[in-house]
Amino acid sequence: MPAPSDTPLVGIVMGSRSDWDTMQHAAVKLDALGVPHEVRVVSAHRTPDVLFDYAAGAEARGLRAIIAGAGGAAHLPGMLAAKTPVPVLGVPVQSKALNGLDSLLSIVQMPGGVPVATFAIGQAGAINAALFAAAMLANEQPQIGAALAAFRQRQTDDVAGNDDPRQ
Amino acid sequence: MPAPSDTPLVGIVMGSRSDWDTMQHAAVKLDALGVPHEVRVVSAHRTPDVLFDYAAGAEARGLRAIIAGAGGAAHLPGMLAAKTPVPVLGVPVQSKALNGLDSLLSIVQMPGGVPVATFAIGQAGAINAALFAAAMLANEQPQIGAALAAFRQRQTDDVAGNDDPRQ
Amino acid sequence: MPAPSDTPLVGIVMGSRSDWDTMQHAAVKLDALGVPHEVRVVSAHRTPDVLFDYAAGAEARGLRAIIAGAGGAAHLPGMLAAKTPVPVLGVPVQSKALNGLDSLLSIVQMPGGVPVATFAIGQAGAINAALFAAAMLANEQPQIGAALAAFRQRQTDDVAGNDDPRQ
Amino acid sequence: MPAPSDTPLVGIVMGSRSDWDTMQHAAVKLDALGVPHEVRVVSAHRTPDVLFDYAAGAEARGLRAIIAGAGGAAHLPGMLAAKTPVPVLGVPVQSKALNGLDSLLSIVQMPGGVPVATFAIGQAGAINAALFAAAMLANEQPQIGAALAAFRQRQTDDVAGNDDPRQ
Amino acid sequence: MPAPSDTPLVGIVMGSRSDWDTMQHAAVKLDALGVPHEVRVVSAHRTPDVLFDYAAGAEARGLRAIIAGAGGAAHLPGMLAAKTPVPVLGVPVQSKALNGLDSLLSIVQMPGGVPVATFAIGQAGAINAALFAAAMLANEQPQIGAALAAFRQRQTDDVAGNDDPRQ
Amino acid sequence: MPAPSDTPLVGIVMGSRSDWDTMQHAAVKLDALGVPHEVRVVSAHRTPDVLFDYAAGAEARGLRAIIAGAGGAAHLPGMLAAKTPVPVLGVPVQSKALNGLDSLLSIVQMPGGVPVATFAIGQAGAINAALFAAAMLANEQPQIGAALAAFRQRQTDDVAGNDDPRQ
Amino acid sequence: MPAPSDTPLVGIVMGSRSDWDTMQHAAVKLDALGVPHEVRVVSAHRTPDVLFDYAAGAEARGLRAIIAGAGGAAHLPGMLAAKTPVPVLGVPVQSKALNGLDSLLSIVQMPGGVPVATFAIGQAGAINAALFAAAMLANEQPQIGAALAAFRQRQTDDVAGNDDPRQ
Amino acid sequence: MPAPSDTPLVGIVMGSRSDWDTMQHAAVKLDALGVPHEVRVVSAHRTPDVLFDYAAGAEARGLRAIIAGAGGAAHLPGMLAAKTPVPVLGVPVQSKALNGLDSLLSIVQMPGGVPVATFAIGQAGAINAALFAAAMLANEQPQIGAALAAFRQRQTDDVAGNDDPRQ
Repeated sequence: MPAPSDTPLVGIVMGSRSDWDTMQHAAVKLDALGVPHEVRVVSAHRTPDVLFDYAAGAEARGLRAIIAGAGGAAHLPGMLAAKTPVPVLGVPVQSKALNGLDSLLSIVQMPGGVPVATFAIGQAGAINAALFAAAMLANEQPQIGAALAAFRQRQTDDVAGNDDPRQ
Repeated sequence: MPAPSDTPLVGIVMGSRSDWDTMQHAAVKLDALGVPHEVRVVSAHRTPDVLFDYAAGAEARGLRAIIAGAGGAAHLPGMLAAKTPVPVLGVPVQSKALNGLDSLLSIVQMPGGVPVATFAIGQAGAINAALFAAAMLANEQPQIGAALAAFRQRQTDDVAGNDDPRQ
Repeated sequence: MPAPSDTPLVGIVMGSRSDWDTMQHAAVKLDALGVPHEVRVVSAHRTPDVLFDYAAGAEARGLRAIIAGAGGAAHLPGMLAAKTPVPVLGVPVQSKALNGLDSLLSIVQMPGGVPVATFAIGQAGAINAALFAAAMLANEQPQIGAALAAFRQRQTDDVAGNDDPRQ
Repeated sequence: MPAPSDTPLVGIVMGSRSDWDTMQHAAVKLDALGVPHEVRVVSAHRTPDVLFDYAAGAEARGLRAIIAGAGGAAHLPGMLAAKTPVPVLGVPVQSKALNGLDSLLSIVQMPGGVPVATFAIGQAGAINAALFAAAMLANEQPQIGAALAAFRQRQTDDVAGNDDPRQ
Repeated sequence: MPAPSDTPLVGIVMGSRSDWDTMQHAAVKLDALGVPHEVRVVSAHRTPDVLFDYAAGAEARGLRAIIAGAGGAAHLPGMLAAKTPVPVLGVPVQSKALNGLDSLLSIVQMPGGVPVATFAIGQAGAINAALFAAAMLANEQPQIGAALAAFRQRQTDDVAGNDDPRQ
Repeated sequence: MPAPSDTPLVGIVMGSRSDWDTMQHAAVKLDALGVPHEVRVVSAHRTPDVLFDYAAGAEARGLRAIIAGAGGAAHLPGMLAAKTPVPVLGVPVQSKALNGLDSLLSIVQMPGGVPVATFAIGQAGAINAALFAAAMLANEQPQIGAALAAFRQRQTDDVAGNDDPRQ
Repeated sequence: MPAPSDTPLVGIVMGSRSDWDTMQHAAVKLDALGVPHEVRVVSAHRTPDVLFDYAAGAEARGLRAIIAGAGGAAHLPGMLAAKTPVPVLGVPVQSKALNGLDSLLSIVQMPGGVPVATFAIGQAGAINAALFAAAMLANEQPQIGAALAAFRQRQTDDVAGNDDPRQ
Repeated sequence: MPAPSDTPLVGIVMGSRSDWDTMQHAAVKLDALGVPHEVRVVSAHRTPDVLFDYAAGAEARGLRAIIAGAGGAAHLPGMLAAKTPVPVLGVPVQSKALNGLDSLLSIVQMPGGVPVATFAIGQAGAINAALFAAAMLANEQPQIGAALAAFRQRQTDDVAGNDDPRQ
């Protein structure tokens, strides 16, 4: 049974306010697709208890996916996944020294048993996590599936109808 | 509406027969969780038309997720994602020279607009893609959710009840 | 039999309009060498059917080489190579987070059976792909061979005649 | 006030039983230096609640340092550090595909505010974490300081007195 | 004008006898496709004059492509390309310490002006360089084009007709 | 026995004046926590004798920890650790070409027997080394422990009380 | 027998005029130490014959060392070393995409038999190659040895006499 | 004035007995070229005073070059160079986890002012350091120059006279 339309279905969380530059692209995309969501700063390292509470309550509150962005030694997505059966989508935020390679490996190299679905470093990853979350909901919520299909068609048309890079 | 129980809900595809050593761990895990699935070798580079046909028909055949494993210049997951709205889960297979770093980057660094949910290099990634696919189905198919919850509890108990590494 | 001089012999394709900054250097070089060519944006991920059509028709349209530039999880060159016997030359476009290392590995690490000739990351790669395409045509089209020889001689003379870096 | 000599002053924890091959070198070294310690398998991902309980009780139980070893997306040391004021020493365990580079970056690249003291990948790191933990205790517990000084002297003498590699 | 059928059209050169383990796969593939070729050990560093003579005479002797394999600081392909207008195809041989990453970067990162078409590290790269060389010749020598087309079809059929990895 | 409050307990050393941009963050944090410290430029390569003297006298002068920052082939932390039983905390300074990856590996990969506790590349590492040094002293000097606890609480509160990134 | 003082003892060569930004630091340092030298742009790829002539005549012209800087697929130092018994000192110039990691590996990973003494990426490497060349000459030319000793002493004094980074 | 023929002109030092597997190749090569040398294990970290004494006395004892091999956080070559005007040649020994990349960066990335001439990772580097040391001595000691010339000629002849890899 789908949640009422004003209940968040997706949680967007990030380890630091500075990650919002990246993660806002997930929020914008969910808005565009009509997916109700919430946004929170939750730090694995500075607010571990908040992280645990957030994860522990996610399923009961009706969240169907959590998009978690973090940089450096990025533990937020993996620790959320350890505490909730709700699928977690990880976005490696580009870090200063190592350009997000540390973020990527810290998120994607989870041990067998506790999955985090990982997307590209930075803005593209934030957008794609949102699209993926929408796709997960599309079967149950046809209007999200329709919005997603329309987005994909428009994206294809934009390239196909405008394929001379010199113009 | 859930598909009949004997219809595959998940497709496991891989770029080469040699990827089966890795990808069988996804199949074993789906079996254990009671998720009906199919298994195919589909090469992005050697059988691109088969890949397109597979992707184009995936939704209509009732697939709810595709787990795609590939190594090196791993194009299979991304090209499936380009051709179907069905969520694609990518597993980077460990490659000979570069140990799977090439596979990982080829899969995870997708451009904004076409997501591939990426998991760890090798066996852990195959297991986790299966677990994630099951979690995606858990809302609609309670018996899969229950199997997943039981697996997670058992996994926790195994560690907690046996936590002296010297024994 | 050479194609008529106004038919494109080389196709320059790229995954995104933003790749034009890099790929224009291939076009400029082909112009300078008198190699007729065409330019298109074709995205492996956003317009996979256009990519397939482009590749499938390349040989019949008289293309003798395709120069394909892409960044990140760069699947365009490899998928073209999968669909056409026309030789494909790949140019890794410098990406934001990983500086093109992802683009390079995604293009060069093709499995045995489907080659993509790969060149350097960025502008140097675009120039060299154009020079290589011209060299492939030089045997049949002597005026291209002559233009190439003149370019190489001029390039040598420029260095040799001006070899004091302090001036 | 030093803890009674039979109370563990150092906790050695690891994310998986398979990490014991590496982490036993920490235990052996602590034994040799007379540092009372305990050993536990605590998985950040499979037993997050146990991890939190372990960390939350560490100070009260008299632990003065926690040596934590983990591989891949290694979250154990950082999450311990998030939950306890007891200093945490991280040991990156060598991983299969990426040889411990993922483990190292996941442990060392902690954000400002929550430190993890990180040591070398593998056995050398386990030994050095133990030596460092002993050095932290040496001021209060002179017999540990003396054992450490003796170890360092012996180590120096072994090299200095036997410096012809051909024998 | 095509060369007589018994004159080598492709030269396979390598920096060391130990590279033959890798480069033989290029020779086997050219044999299978009916492409006349020669094989030589030519070291950029130990026999630079032989390298220069080989490159300087390549065009006059009728070579249409040179496949050059080397490892580590792999200078052979680039120096050949500096001395001959004949297209050079580089194969990075897997090195001991760095697994061929050094070989790859030494070959592919050529400056604008002197191209080397680069293929994957190791055996796959050797096979693909041979396939690419054959494709370059296919327009002029229809029997090579036919052999190549047959190889590609067979390769596709092998995967498509045998796509269950469990058998 | 604690040292008198005006005697430095921590030495902050760095290989070059230019490292001060990074290392000042350690000094600021120690100041904030009330940890008496000293600051020196000591170059392993340009002033090796000063380095040896500094290390040899550290224990007698009452130093309880040395925080050492260096970039590139960063030998300062390891050589200090070789010459003193005082615990050494290494901070990899971000280098120009390799972004601090060289600094990190030069510091963290110490052989078994001579530990250097290593922290993140750059500013975060400098802050965390200071926090770690304070934590090492907290048992003996309760006011440092209290300051540290207050800092951690404030840090947690800052995130928890301000968790909407859009404001 | 030392060469007359106005004959160059060291040759500084570089693959491109743009490398002068880096390599001028070698020239400045040789000037400061009173080491006669010459400066040339010699491209391994664009002027291979000039490179061979330069190397072949180096010993007879009295050069005692060649400092060679190059970036990307940096073949200049290694090819000089292949053609002359004069010691070659390689300086990896920082490249655009890969920050000089390609330059470094292309220079340092020479096969056994043909050495290139390699220094750090960029300006530090250029300075150090000059210092090393001077040190090679110091035994025969005491005034160079004296200048070098004075430089080292001054460098040490500069650090030791000014070791408070806050001033 | 050349040293008497039985006085070591080159010192081969290494950080650990286990490095002898690599460094013996330097000794064998110096023997073959008739360069008198000595061999010592000197650990930067375990015997820093021995290292300083060795470096401080090197010039007076007549050493004209020091070949230093070390792995991991390899500080031996750089610290020798900090303490002696005798030229230091660094050999990165292949390390267990990171294959010698850590050793290489720890040795080659020296700051401007204190050079270490660096050679390839492992056996090739040890051989080349020996050849380079011999080349440094060749001007003063003609018999070494002659031996070196003979080695180079033989090496060239071996390749040139045996250039069919299939035999």
